[in-house]
Amino acid sequence: MPEVDAKAFRRTCGMFTTGVTVITTSINGQVHGMTANSFTSVSIDPPLILVCVDVRSKMAQLLSSSKAFTVNVLGCHQEEVSRHFAGSSGDWRGTFMPFGESVRLDDCLAALLCEVRYTVNFQRGTMSSCSVL
Amino acid sequence: MPEVDAKAFRRTCGMFTTGVTVITTSINGQVHGMTANSFTSVSIDPPLILVCVDVRSKMAQLLSSSKAFTVNVLGCHQEEVSRHFAGSSGDWRGTFMPFGESVRLDDCLAALLCEVRYTVNFQRGTMSSCSVL
Repeated sequence: MPEVDAKAFRRTCGMFTTGVTVITTSINGQVHGMTANSFTSVSIDPPLILVCVDVRSKMAQLLSSSKAFTVNVLGCHQEEVSRHFAGSSGDWRGTFMPFGESVRLDDCLAALLCEVRYTVNFQRGTMSSCSVL
Repeated sequence: MPEVDAKAFRRTCGMFTTGVTVITTSINGQVHGMTANSFTSVSIDPPLILVCVDVRSKMAQLLSSSKAFTVNVLGCHQEEVSRHFAGSSGDWRGTFMPFGESVRLDDCLAALLCEVRYTVNFQRGTMSSCSVL
């Protein structure tokens, strides 16, 4: 296989516009969140979505042990929220709210309560397809 | 599992903005194209992307037998192209150009030449994760 230039590949993928989500979950009373733009709806009936997370990330481990998690869809005014959950020290002053067996952000465009149904491990990525509760 | 309202689920997923792509491939000299917005980049190294197609679609069969296919990322001025490859009779006057062992649209923001590496079948959806050539 010919070598692909990483910068060119990243730039090309960046031509495809996406929204931004924050994936949240709560395990043993501790809340976790991670910014992700790898959200895709797979089918309407049954309701299935998928998210991709780096296999090395903490969220990949958490998703595999969580009973439920939430996909919080951010609005265009929420860049600060996105940065906070991407690891920046940004000034997020929001709160988490209980949401079934998970938690959701108090301020987002939409929230989907999900459970992991299938997990596929690729070389560096973990793809979890999830049903909506 | 509680029943999920299909309309509400569709509306919620629609809150997540996405770009639009046309997936193209050429098999035995015959060219095929399908509009899809289920494109996601999975990892940079190795370069992996994924697309989801309906398991009942012709493209699902074509992808499984194709040597290569193309993800053509559309620009915001290309709604007509998107409609054409979504099955509308719209007035598309573009052409296909050779692109490795696949074809690409003559006019798009970016084009990724891919081959299918993994295929996962869910209940109604087929998820193909693909490496970039």
